[in-house]
Amino acid sequence: MFHKSNCLIAQSGGPTVAINASLAGIIEEALNSPQIDTIYGALNGILGVLDEKLINLSNTFSKDKEALDLLKNTPSMYLGSCRYKLPEAGDADSDYLEIFKIFQKYNIKYFFYIGGNDSMDTVSKLSKYAKKINFDISIIGIPKTIDNDLRHIDHTPGYGSAAKYISTSILEIAHDAYIYDIQSVIIVEIMGRNAGWLTAASALARNEYNTAPHLIYLPELPFSTEQFITDVQKELSTRKQVIVAVSEGIKDSTGEYISAKSGQVDQFGHVMLSGTGKYLENLVKEKIACKVRSIELNVLQRCATHISSLTDINESCMLGKTSVPLALEGCSGRMVLLRRESNSPYTVSYDSVSIDEIANKEKYVPVDWISESKNDITEEFMEYMRPLIQGEPKQSYKNGLPSYLSVNHLIHDSNQA
Amino acid sequence: MFHKSNCLIAQSGGPTVAINASLAGIIEEALNSPQIDTIYGALNGILGVLDEKLINLSNTFSKDKEALDLLKNTPSMYLGSCRYKLPEAGDADSDYLEIFKIFQKYNIKYFFYIGGNDSMDTVSKLSKYAKKINFDISIIGIPKTIDNDLRHIDHTPGYGSAAKYISTSILEIAHDAYIYDIQSVIIVEIMGRNAGWLTAASALARNEYNTAPHLIYLPELPFSTEQFITDVQKELSTRKQVIVAVSEGIKDSTGEYISAKSGQVDQFGHVMLSGTGKYLENLVKEKIACKVRSIELNVLQRCATHISSLTDINESCMLGKTSVPLALEGCSGRMVLLRRESNSPYTVSYDSVSIDEIANKEKYVPVDWISESKNDITEEFMEYMRPLIQGEPKQSYKNGLPSYLSVNHLIHDSNQA
Repeated sequence: MFHKSNCLIAQSGGPTVAINASLAGIIEEALNSPQIDTIYGALNGILGVLDEKLINLSNTFSKDKEALDLLKNTPSMYLGSCRYKLPEAGDADSDYLEIFKIFQKYNIKYFFYIGGNDSMDTVSKLSKYAKKINFDISIIGIPKTIDNDLRHIDHTPGYGSAAKYISTSILEIAHDAYIYDIQSVIIVEIMGRNAGWLTAASALARNEYNTAPHLIYLPELPFSTEQFITDVQKELSTRKQVIVAVSEGIKDSTGEYISAKSGQVDQFGHVMLSGTGKYLENLVKEKIACKVRSIELNVLQRCATHISSLTDINESCMLGKTSVPLALEGCSGRMVLLRRESNSPYTVSYDSVSIDEIANKEKYVPVDWISESKNDITEEFMEYMRPLIQGEPKQSYKNGLPSYLSVNHLIHDSNQA
Repeated sequence: MFHKSNCLIAQSGGPTVAINASLAGIIEEALNSPQIDTIYGALNGILGVLDEKLINLSNTFSKDKEALDLLKNTPSMYLGSCRYKLPEAGDADSDYLEIFKIFQKYNIKYFFYIGGNDSMDTVSKLSKYAKKINFDISIIGIPKTIDNDLRHIDHTPGYGSAAKYISTSILEIAHDAYIYDIQSVIIVEIMGRNAGWLTAASALARNEYNTAPHLIYLPELPFSTEQFITDVQKELSTRKQVIVAVSEGIKDSTGEYISAKSGQVDQFGHVMLSGTGKYLENLVKEKIACKVRSIELNVLQRCATHISSLTDINESCMLGKTSVPLALEGCSGRMVLLRRESNSPYTVSYDSVSIDEIANKEKYVPVDWISESKNDITEEFMEYMRPLIQGEPKQSYKNGLPSYLSVNHLIHDSNQA
């Protein structure tokens, strides 16, 4: 007789706008798979497995197609997240014993882990441990990260939507800046500690009238404060408003973060790391003495679902869907990925790769995609990014605000009934 | 024989998302008015009149209905802005002589000035001067300000869209915060030096699952850092994530801005005003020692057209339209306004008021709209705000970004052809 098993899904790492689309893709596909009985979700990533905080997703979504559509366009992790690195299995087995006890208890034969670099490390360790103890389970990683720094995948789910938010914001900031007939410098600090993919996306704001950002600095090249001031002064000699996009992770030639150089002291006398943007704002104030403002896009670049990319949402959903037949075939320790087949028309294909090719490795912007002036990007880079921000999901509104799926199960509020 | 005259429009003060809808309303109405020949726009507010930087808006918009629609949904000032206060006419007449020379030269019989408090001061001074020198011109003010701090008007154009951006951002920030199962405090700094209207709008983010923001501090009441820490600690005893909305303009009981207390020193040894949010972030770090982050919404709250309120855009357009027949009737030194006739269904009526009732006066949040705990707002305040964020303008996209009207005429770029 045909034996049914259950599947478990969890999400991990930092938020993106598209990570719930991957979750929705898995749920949709699993609901249609006769080999899968109950779909469980673990709350707060692998910690939710360790703590047995499991919820029944079949109950929530099997009869509510509308909720599944809403899930695709709900920001951040519906299942919550964690930042927890599993110890090496050889060092301490207790986490592994606990996790596999839960797998056994809930008859989990398929485990899907949606996350970034660190999450793929978890997939790698768990799949190796399963093999070692001869436990019959398929463990599949589904990528996500706004940082676009995973290898072997053309681009990561979440990146396109973040790129759309960033470029839209830069365009709107430019409209805001152009109105005064005075010299000013606007510095926009964008996420990315080591890779400049997000900061580069600011260039998508350029159009037939908008030339901003006028300077773009990525963390892949050493940053010189002297050269920066020279660059800004040169720009100010040809235009009134200079808009600068800068990665939070720029470092000087010794590898020290620019944000660490500030040496600011807070109200308690503690040395405080200002943002990179704030540091450069003070620098321009001191050296050029024109009107200057810094803007930190902050967490909104990873959670602003109301301006997400349909291409990103659809691809993220497809990656989720792709992972299910892979697991059903008995594959384990693999991550699903997408390849760009063509740029015009833009098409991608889906495949998978051994998790060990992915975990704990970062992908940086190729240096030949940075302009010779070191303060801009090339047209080739623009062509790479353009397809990723195309299209807008249909956004429903309720009481004037975007309508998202309730995450009440994540909110620990002892005041609530 | 019927004598045709020309009209002139200018925009001034800080940007809003709705100020171009008022401009579009005036243009639309003026194009249909047989008494009006050419519609001119002055670039950079009253400075554009002084410098004779006039553009012909009839040429641009009379045959392009699509451009007029695009104008309604283009952020910031299409005509640019200025921060220029006219001297008292008695003190120095040179500005006035120059301005009225231009009015004469271009046969301007109707002057429309769209702006906030300071701009209404300009309307007041110019209309008085016209009367004094017996110059036949109608000068009408059209209000705008995200700050919602003008008197005699139920709410100001631009406020509803800013409120929608702020509440949407708070909701998305809440989704971002809820994912980790650890204690954290998120402080969101919102614009408003003296009035708390914008900060209060954060409360619109609350829905059937989201209770954030959990604490709201407006500048209308003195702010106590001790009470703030007590409030946060109390919230942390009932929930994991505490989200705080705070006005940039909060002051202590002596009237000193909290942001001025920081006494931070920048990399050049200069005392630097950190943001209010950053100051409170450091305070929580010191006194509570849990995970804490501050987010400054910055200029996006006044220029994020991609998430504007249709109610706001439509009302702003109607205020523009309303100003034209008023001018044609020969009224001068008046500001158009709207009154709320009913809250359910929400309806408004349009009228006008003498400019002297408006200029240089601010409207604050009524203290009885702040909760007794001093860290929240009342349901009455919620009922006031809710209708203002309703509806979404149809947003067109081009290459994956919101499509806005070119402001090439504002961009001083000597590199451009």
